[in-house]
Amino acid sequence: MDQLKLLYLIPVDLGFSPEGGIYSPEQIRIIYSLKHFVAENASTARKMLKKCGYPHPLQEVEIVEFNEHTRAMPETMADVKKMLTDVPVCGLMSEAGMPCVADPGHEVVRLAHELKIKVVPLHGPSSIMQALVASGLNGQQFVFHGYLPVKTEFRKSKLRELQVQAQKSNYTHIFMEAPYRSNQILQDIVSVLSDLISLCVACEIGTPEEYIETKKIGQWKKSLPDLHKKRCIFCISA
Amino acid sequence: MDQLKLLYLIPVDLGFSPEGGIYSPEQIRIIYSLKHFVAENASTARKMLKKCGYPHPLQEVEIVEFNEHTRAMPETMADVKKMLTDVPVCGLMSEAGMPCVADPGHEVVRLAHELKIKVVPLHGPSSIMQALVASGLNGQQFVFHGYLPVKTEFRKSKLRELQVQAQKSNYTHIFMEAPYRSNQILQDIVSVLSDLISLCVACEIGTPEEYIETKKIGQWKKSLPDLHKKRCIFCISA
Repeated sequence: MDQLKLLYLIPVDLGFSPEGGIYSPEQIRIIYSLKHFVAENASTARKMLKKCGYPHPLQEVEIVEFNEHTRAMPETMADVKKMLTDVPVCGLMSEAGMPCVADPGHEVVRLAHELKIKVVPLHGPSSIMQALVASGLNGQQFVFHGYLPVKTEFRKSKLRELQVQAQKSNYTHIFMEAPYRSNQILQDIVSVLSDLISLCVACEIGTPEEYIETKKIGQWKKSLPDLHKKRCIFCISA
Repeated sequence: MDQLKLLYLIPVDLGFSPEGGIYSPEQIRIIYSLKHFVAENASTARKMLKKCGYPHPLQEVEIVEFNEHTRAMPETMADVKKMLTDVPVCGLMSEAGMPCVADPGHEVVRLAHELKIKVVPLHGPSSIMQALVASGLNGQQFVFHGYLPVKTEFRKSKLRELQVQAQKSNYTHIFMEAPYRSNQILQDIVSVLSDLISLCVACEIGTPEEYIETKKIGQWKKSLPDLHKKRCIFCISA
């Protein structure tokens, strides 16, 4: 492994940075030392750099955008490869939270391993992990399913499948949904799952609007929160 | 929900704090404001407070130990409940990484939800999440299995089961092992799994000895690293 070449995986805040930002002093030192990034979204990446007091002119920063849309273009991976090969130290940033979780960034990391570049994951916000630990549900075994199917019938059938899995073993099952469908999926969850299943609704994690509550489906049914346009993580457990 | 009562979930470093510690300025402000903690290990918790420049005398800090051993004692949960009820703001700390992941802390959080105490999860180190993102394997769906069975035959049978699951869907499967069994489990992994399975070995995450490498089982077989007494996370994917 070429120890001189490094790819730092840099987490991004979850929508709201408190005074002083989300990074530790050591992480700030690392971020300030970088001028080359692969980012899920270039504009978010620049905003994040600005917010944490990045000391270099942003015009000097080189960013290759790698996301759900650009990854299909043949030149994107070539640009990423050129940056990883030409530059001794790069950073990889997601749009929010940990890079490579619920985004296609792992393809960049896989390439880094193939190129024998050392990958260094910085710690940081992860709405999935923070939802899980705050849920009070089992954190010794868990599954993250990403997004459930969009179509109602497939989504309901997937929810039934997760309930069976949760009843068979003690794993916590975690999934998410686009903010404009949060109310819809909550309706589906309470209509499909048994009253005795525990559900944690974790909204807007890491922001001043953070809301996290865990109750049995039977209790949720008595009064459902309005989740419209809220970024939510759902955790269920038998 | 009684918004005046708060339980902060506080992550702890993974064995090595760089200069300045792992916390952001906002997190430091929160930690300094606390004098009551539930901790997996009281001595680790005190060390962590000292390391991050905690400004109050440590004798003034009240800590209830809640872990695999004390949780069976009837007075432990009573002590936790008393602290959560009597004090407006408490912290929950694990021995390393995020609280409630791979430790029984979720029982404390469940109680907090029952008592209508607001639970606030701070972001921080998580060897599982950092191993996953640095593995280059799929981070859009994954399973954390905790510890595999100790007995060789059951462990091998579990590994075969995980391989079948990995081949059926695209989920990444993550598990860990006690440091003194790391070489043994690596032997079992390469002896049981097919040459085409991808394996990430992630050791001593967040420390100067960090080592993360992803290769196919067939490639690993050519030369196995010595993992003796190293804290490892393993990720596999078909």
